[in-house]
Amino acid sequence: MDFKQRLYDLASIVDVALNKLLPPEDTYPQTIYKAMRYSIFGGGKRLRPILMVSTYEALNGNKEDVIPYACAIEMIHTYSLIHDDLPAMDNDDYRRGKLTNHKVFGDAMAILAGDALLNIATETMIKTALNNPNKHIKYLHAMNEIMTASGTFGMLSGQVVDIESERVQIDENTLNFMHSHKTGALITASVRAGAILGGTSKSQLEALTEFSKNLGLAFQIKDDILDIEGDESKLGKKVGSDQKNNKSTFPSVYGLDRSKEMVIQISQKAIDALEIFNNEGEFLRQLTYYLIKRES
Amino acid sequence: MDFKQRLYDLASIVDVALNKLLPPEDTYPQTIYKAMRYSIFGGGKRLRPILMVSTYEALNGNKEDVIPYACAIEMIHTYSLIHDDLPAMDNDDYRRGKLTNHKVFGDAMAILAGDALLNIATETMIKTALNNPNKHIKYLHAMNEIMTASGTFGMLSGQVVDIESERVQIDENTLNFMHSHKTGALITASVRAGAILGGTSKSQLEALTEFSKNLGLAFQIKDDILDIEGDESKLGKKVGSDQKNNKSTFPSVYGLDRSKEMVIQISQKAIDALEIFNNEGEFLRQLTYYLIKRES
Repeated sequence: MDFKQRLYDLASIVDVALNKLLPPEDTYPQTIYKAMRYSIFGGGKRLRPILMVSTYEALNGNKEDVIPYACAIEMIHTYSLIHDDLPAMDNDDYRRGKLTNHKVFGDAMAILAGDALLNIATETMIKTALNNPNKHIKYLHAMNEIMTASGTFGMLSGQVVDIESERVQIDENTLNFMHSHKTGALITASVRAGAILGGTSKSQLEALTEFSKNLGLAFQIKDDILDIEGDESKLGKKVGSDQKNNKSTFPSVYGLDRSKEMVIQISQKAIDALEIFNNEGEFLRQLTYYLIKRES
Repeated sequence: MDFKQRLYDLASIVDVALNKLLPPEDTYPQTIYKAMRYSIFGGGKRLRPILMVSTYEALNGNKEDVIPYACAIEMIHTYSLIHDDLPAMDNDDYRRGKLTNHKVFGDAMAILAGDALLNIATETMIKTALNNPNKHIKYLHAMNEIMTASGTFGMLSGQVVDIESERVQIDENTLNFMHSHKTGALITASVRAGAILGGTSKSQLEALTEFSKNLGLAFQIKDDILDIEGDESKLGKKVGSDQKNNKSTFPSVYGLDRSKEMVIQISQKAIDALEIFNNEGEFLRQLTYYLIKRES
């Protein structure tokens, strides 16, 4: 199947499922559901759910229900963006060409909408596990991957280091810690949870973990580069925000040219890690190329 | 055993367990762990964990590991207080006689510390379930109780209505919705999760649910009364904050005298619900009297 078509199809499947999993906007009290839906349907690429589902498919997962878990990781990702954008954090007014959550709903509701998305992600995973007798262990392991990655041993400590590194020149180790946690952990969890639900072998899980770590790193470096030389109309936000917020980035630590080389080298390591997969790994390979060539 | 001694012992057991479950303060990046621990060890009464453990004990739970779940609900309760106190929400400077989290660590870190406590609560529950083969279903059901109660069908929607009701005179139905969700849901979940882990029958669960709903309501009305006529030195915070924030409370809707009558009537309904329990329900009865007579 055509790669772009498959990418579009997977995003659509995730969108439909998210729409079913989130209570409708007329549920009382309406504001919180409006705020949650505003950001969930705010134009995200659905990278993490697509990674989870396509990893699952690469392992011929036998039609277990991976979609709710894919939606859960998108809810977690979205909550982290809402809280990230708050005035107390990065103070961003726009994301993906739309006003950020707190600019529309106010700071209090944005905090609660973020909390609510993290919470409903866990509710979704727990209820899915309860509804699938005999698969509890798999689901608990997938939940464990996801919740560990979103906590202080993953995403949250990356966010802490990010905040504490503003206006400070950080070294390479700190930069690597920050990004491997802030962005990398959830990308790795997407792949690993998809693998666990798909019925992975130990060697497959090791290969996929190596793939995901390199993919996450290449993705983040590309993100930093786009913040310097991206097209604002395509990105849907102003470029230069890292510099404005005095953020340490790969270009600020390694230089722009070296950063571009790193994207190519590291994404190649991601592709190499997939060598134990034949044709079934093709979508993940194409996804890697797609992500490092993206313009938004 | 002496009631007060048992209360103290249970709180101590929870404190010791929380100290083990939360990463030490010297874990990198230190600030987040300091902020989490600051509020977790900020003088909380441990009401919810004590309710969970004592419900579990009333059912002669056969030494299953209820303590991590009791700690998880305290982590969730604490996260909700940290976010509640933020300038964007209630803007409180003091809680239990100490500066609120954001006054010590800043707004950004307080938001992240709250997020982290919600997250680690789920990690704790998931890992406990994974470490106890053959008890997965019980643990998943207890998790489901707790996470549903902390989400938008529980605590969070109470918080939303609370915020939206400031400077507005609300009716009795809205007040009841607000409190049964904001405070009641997590208290009910403490009891129900303890019952599920303790191996409850259907009729016991119904009785305990009725008990917990009335206990939660009486507890909240008492809280509202203490905010009017409590002793600031015992409460560790200023009284009159509800009035200052134009909050609708039971006294503001029903009047102070009627509110006091309600505490007595509703707590009696809680006690009555325990009639199917003999001596094993004694601690829960004494806890009910203790909570409605408390001065802080």
